[in-house]
This record gives sequence, C-alpha cells and structure tokens, in this order.
Amino acid sequence: MSTESPIVAVVGATGAVGREVLSILAERGHPRGAVVAFASDRSSGLAVPFGEGSVQTRALSHAALREADIAIFASSAEVAVRFAPGAAGAGVLCVDNSSAFRADPDVPLVVPEVNAGALAEGRAGGIVASPNCSTILLLVAIEPIRRAFGVEQVVVSTYQAVSGAGLAGMRELDEQAKASVEGRELSRSVFPEQCLFNCFVHESEIDPRTGFNGEEAKIIAEAGKIWGLGGGAPIVPTCIRVPVRRAHAESVFLRTSRPATIEQVRAVLRAGEGLELAEGSSAFPTPLRAGGGDRVLVGHLRRSPTARFGAGGGADEFVFWLCGDQLRKGAALNAVQIAAVLFPSLGAGRGGGRSRVRSVSVNDLVTT
Amino acid sequence: MSTESPIVAVVGATGAVGREVLSILAERGHPRGAVVAFASDRSSGLAVPFGEGSVQTRALSHAALREADIAIFASSAEVAVRFAPGAAGAGVLCVDNSSAFRADPDVPLVVPEVNAGALAEGRAGGIVASPNCSTILLLVAIEPIRRAFGVEQVVVSTYQAVSGAGLAGMRELDEQAKASVEGRELSRSVFPEQCLFNCFVHESEIDPRTGFNGEEAKIIAEAGKIWGLGGGAPIVPTCIRVPVRRAHAESVFLRTSRPATIEQVRAVLRAGEGLELAEGSSAFPTPLRAGGGDRVLVGHLRRSPTARFGAGGGADEFVFWLCGDQLRKGAALNAVQIAAVLFPSLGAGRGGGRSRVRSVSVNDLVTT
Repeated sequence: MSTESPIVAVVGATGAVGREVLSILAERGHPRGAVVAFASDRSSGLAVPFGEGSVQTRALSHAALREADIAIFASSAEVAVRFAPGAAGAGVLCVDNSSAFRADPDVPLVVPEVNAGALAEGRAGGIVASPNCSTILLLVAIEPIRRAFGVEQVVVSTYQAVSGAGLAGMRELDEQAKASVEGRELSRSVFPEQCLFNCFVHESEIDPRTGFNGEEAKIIAEAGKIWGLGGGAPIVPTCIRVPVRRAHAESVFLRTSRPATIEQVRAVLRAGEGLELAEGSSAFPTPLRAGGGDRVLVGHLRRSPTARFGAGGGADEFVFWLCGDQLRKGAALNAVQIAAVLFPSLGAGRGGGRSRVRSVSVNDLVTT
Repeated sequence: MSTESPIVAVVGATGAVGREVLSILAERGHPRGAVVAFASDRSSGLAVPFGEGSVQTRALSHAALREADIAIFASSAEVAVRFAPGAAGAGVLCVDNSSAFRADPDVPLVVPEVNAGALAEGRAGGIVASPNCSTILLLVAIEPIRRAFGVEQVVVSTYQAVSGAGLAGMRELDEQAKASVEGRELSRSVFPEQCLFNCFVHESEIDPRTGFNGEEAKIIAEAGKIWGLGGGAPIVPTCIRVPVRRAHAESVFLRTSRPATIEQVRAVLRAGEGLELAEGSSAFPTPLRAGGGDRVLVGHLRRSPTARFGAGGGADEFVFWLCGDQLRKGAALNAVQIAAVLFPSLGAGRGGGRSRVRSVSVNDLVTT
C-alpha cells in the first residue's frame, strides 16, 4: 500500500490547519484507510470530517506515529519538537507547519513552487519545515519576477486573517460580531486588541532591538533561507491583523535587480506556478475570493511612478496586491505539496502542484 | 460679531463630514448663533446635533451663503463647483472638502501642519481645498521627517474605513454584520465588494494607463502640490478598504534624502505637530484608538533592515504605522483648522492647532 497510498498521519487533526490537511487529502482522493488523525489527549476519540465521512482521532504516541510514511504536523512547536525527530529518525517524512525547525540549518524550509530542490539535498533526517503563512503567499507571488529579473528590495504590508490564531481566533471574531449586533460588550481572549471593526499590529512579540515583531522577523529570515541567501532577505514587512476570517492579503512593492517592463512582469506572473493573475475584466483579488482556493491571487499590478527614484543599475519597481487562503496554501496545502514532492500519489487533485514540482526520492532526504 | 465669532456656513450638514464639522465647532465653543447649516432640498428643515443642542438645516442658496464669513463645504464636488466660486467672489472664505478644486493651480491645497503658508499666497478668490483623507493623515505623519531629513521615496499601503463613503458606507458595514449574525444573505449597494470580513482595492476608478486607482492618484498628485514639487510626489500608494468604521490606518515605508538615525527620527516625530508617537509601553495605534480623536497616531516605528540597499547618497529607510480619524483630521477637522488659520477664534479647543499655525489675514487670500 505504501507505494500507491502512503499512510499519512495528521498531528493536530482537530485544529484549523489539521482539518484543512484532511480536507485536502480527501479532495485529492487519498483513501481514508491510509489516514491516521492524531489529536491531543483531550481531543482524542473525536470524529473529524474526511471527505463525505470522517476519521476518528487517536492519542499521539511515538509508536503510533512510526506506523506512518508521512506525518504532517499541524500542531504547536512543542509537540513537533517532542515527536518529529524520533519519527524522522525511524524513516517517517515529517512535514512541520510550526516554527520549531524553520531556522534549523539542517532542515529544509520549502515552498515547492520556489525551492522544491532543497528537498533533495538530504542534509538531515526526514524533517521538512513549511514556512509561515505570510512568507509562503509572498514568495509564491514574487517567484516568477525573482527568477526573471532578480529582487533587490521588497516592502510588504500584510492584511492578516484571524485564522492565523486557529479556530479560536476565528471564533473570537465571530463572537465579537454577534456581541456588537446584539449590543453587548465585546470580549477578547485570543488577541490583545478587538478584531471586529479594527486593525492592529500583529500580536507576536516585538524585538526591542529592531522594533520588528515575530511575524515580520519570520518573513525576513525565512525568505532569506528559502532564497538561499546568507542572511535575511531584503524584505521590509509590516504585519497587521484585519477582521477577516481565513485568507491573508498583502500589498507588495518590489524593486527588481534588472530592468523590466510591466508587460514582461505581467507575462512572467501569468506563467507563474501556484498563482493566478487578475487581468482585464477579472475582479481584483479579495480574501473572500481567495478563501477555500489553492492559488495565490495576484492583481492591481502597476509599475511604480517612482521607478526613476530607484537605486542605480537600471532597477525597476512594481506594486501589486495578493490574497491567499491562510489555512490552505498558507499552511495545510503547502505541507501536503511538500509531501507530494516525495510521494507523488498525494499530488493529484486540484491545485496542480504535482505536474510541475520535481519528484525526488524520500531516500534523498532521510539519509544524512 | 464677525471679528469674535465669524458666521460659519456648513454645506452638507447632514452628512458624515458635515456633522463632524458641527461637532468640532461646538467643541471649540463656537456659538450656535454663528452657525448656518445647509442641506440638500431633500434634507433641509432637519435638526442636526450641535453640542448639547441642535441647529436646523436650511436649503442652500447663493444669497444665503453670502451671509456667512466662512463656508465649509462637506458636500459633493458638484455642489462645491456650483456654489463656492460665487460665495468666494463675494468675500466668503470657502473651504472645500471635495476634490473639485484640489488640482486647480489657483486654489491652495492645505494641511495646516504642512503648508499653512500657502494660504497667504492669495493667488485666487477665497477658495481653499482640503486634501483627500489618506493624503492628510500621511503628510501630517511624514512632515517632521521631511523637514529634518528630506523624503526621497514613500511606499504606503492604506487600511481605509468605510466612512470614506459617508454615512451610507458605515450603514452598509453595520447592516452586513447584522445580516451575517442573523444568517441572512449579505447585500451591498455602496461598495462593489462585501465589506464585512473582507478587504478590497479602493473602489475609485482605475486609470487604465497607469493601473492606479483614483484614490492612489490623488495621494501622489496632492502631496506633490502640497510639498511644492512640480509634479507628483515620489509616493507609491496602494489603497485598500478594510471593515473598519471611521478611522484610516496606513503602513508607511520612507526613504529619507539625508542620513538619519532611528533616535533622530523618533525625536522629530515626538516634537511633530498634529501627531502623537506611541513609544515605550504606549499601545500601538489602532483605528479604534484613533477614532474620535484629533491627532494622527504613529507607532511601530523601525529602521528598515534594507537601509543598506537604498539608493546612494547616504539615504536611510524607516517604516511605521499610523491611524487617524477619517472624518475628523481626514476631513472635517482639517477644514476647520484651515478656516482657523484665517479666523483664529475657530482655533480654540482640543487639538491645539491654533497655537502653532501662523495666522494670516483673510484679505491676503480674497484679493487676487
């Protein structure tokens, strides 16, 4: 069975990302019998949806995890740190959505559209990290431009959905809407600020040395690693939460390294992988339009009128707006796509990741 | 009476901005007897709040308008075009919130904290234009940095409240929240996209030549005029609506012309006019925190890690986040502040505009 349908363990199956992983596996025709859903002790034994049916969650254990071919961690960093290394050592491909291993130089950090090749390097055990949601969406949209013209500088402002804080974040926004309509006082426990009818600087911790918050620092560091730079990427992020349920948006300014016309940028984006460029009469991207979808929607593309102010060397400047589902491409889908590079049977279904991403052997990865 | 308490006509007194003008006049102790509230024929005869009491609206006419010393137009561009020139010719100081006269080279376009001096130039009749809300908030925050270090380039992404479309816009958001909570279908008529739980590119028309929408083009052109440049300012705006009621937010990246340290930038912002810098343990700005206030709240100030990538010549790069009340400083308050430059009795009250803005004679303005 392992060749055709690898056994996929989903760790954290009752959470927002875990549920989305199950939904994507079902959409792609992965058999229910080849899925093991793990939850915390508190949530084990619950039924979680899988396609038209459901799977029952089990309590996570080292022994049970080793029965899988692939473990997708949609859990806290603590759980990943506790369980992934052992499973990876036993030959399980562990794809981790948390930040636990992203900075580890021995763990590939992968957005398949950008650096699937990193999976073949086989520098470590079988752990692969999936980046932060904002990083993934940004890098998918930038990649065609970066390949064609290079990237000298990016300024990005995010419009981040509450789903980044999981189901609890989504419930908090919904509950605030209800309280507002019913004239009750709005309460909060997940976020430090009211979400409804408000925007606020991302709640991750501020580094007093730089002033950047954790989310912003992740984008800089993760993009630097994914792009293979020695340090952080030349990205200036401002991360903001907005009262949106589950799709992030980002306003992007980009200075290329080499001259480019707007027609050339449009052409490379049109041919880009994992994204969809809104052109002509197509409606601009919105979080609502991106929600539930697999692709990063890109639109409102313009050449900057300040291009003449750019640094020397013939650089050019462009601005665009992107939206992408935070739970899917921002988390669950990227993890499944990583697994699908090594287990091509997972690549079926919509999204079309499989046909474009080079397949490498799991042995390339697990042998150090 | 004219010396102590000029007669102020508010044109469009039943709208969101007109109501705010009346509220600001009342806060500043302007006597109710020196206020004339004009509304469309449809709305004339209504009582609109003025402090603890109210004023009754009258139908707008050329003759009635000429009885005022100051007319603040919180109306459509069409109404301003029809009534302001005649009143201005008759010696009335007309402060227009609409876009009608902003590009007119004979009409000063003023943010008092930035270019109050433009009011003394007296190039035209008594019309002064108040800029677009996003422009005002941005320029107030940038001004201390511009004066000290120059501005080579600005990249700004807005998070704009629905109040930019007036009371109808605010009602649409509230109604969508109600429909969502009650499980009904969400309807819309003011905006082209659903506001609730969504973000979208500003609804103003896209220029097919540049790709920028009207709101973005306004920021570029208006800032260029206010800064006294020959053309547009070196600003790259992306204007986005968010489900927020009445305060705009903006994420700002700024490249200075001359070297600056973060401490220097902090110091000039701290001393800046019309703004408040969140430092230390102060909470970051949010639209909710800015709502109803007079100052532009600035926070999350950082030096860009890409400063080394900047254009030559020792430029530096900074990023910050601002929030300001769209109806007050973004419209009504700025208009009252413009009038107060010429009629100092209007400058009393909170906000403190009067003490800092140079007073010039109305004669400087109305004599061409």
